[in-house]
Amino acid sequence: MKFKASINIMPLKELLDPQGKAVTGSLHNLGLTGVQDVRIGKHINVILEATSADQAHQMTHEACKKLLANQVMESFEFTIEALN
Amino acid sequence: MKFKASINIMPLKELLDPQGKAVTGSLHNLGLTGVQDVRIGKHINVILEATSADQAHQMTHEACKKLLANQVMESFEFTIEALN
Repeated sequence: MKFKASINIMPLKELLDPQGKAVTGSLHNLGLTGVQDVRIGKHINVILEATSADQAHQMTHEACKKLLANQVMESFEFTIEALN
Repeated sequence: MKFKASINIMPLKELLDPQGKAVTGSLHNLGLTGVQDVRIGKHINVILEATSADQAHQMTHEACKKLLANQVMESFEFTIEALN
């Protein structure tokens, strides 16, 4: 069965996000003064072949831990959805 | 009222995603051979002050169009949630 994993990888809350701070400033300059905070991370879609949703979950977790997220600086979360 | 916008910005389906292709290869090398496709984009969380969910929606749309997404190469989608 095919599954789609939607992964969000974000900088840890405890850490500064200089890119987000820069974007906050730029949005203010564009007139969007209601913007208070911006944090920027990665969104990754993975299409994978697995025998069950459980296995897809496990593979995605492994991919995040081993390669996609740097857990010293980033946290990750994901959802799995079955594709037809 | 405070709102949180969760924005996903992804490369258009019609375009190659070389970074995603490289990650697909790396995941195969790590033994995750069930991975068939990877596409990598940005996930952006914006905290903003607006009078209504409608206004928050409009501000986020404007931020995406004017700054965050390059619509020649990227598509964006977002959800708005009210914060306490």
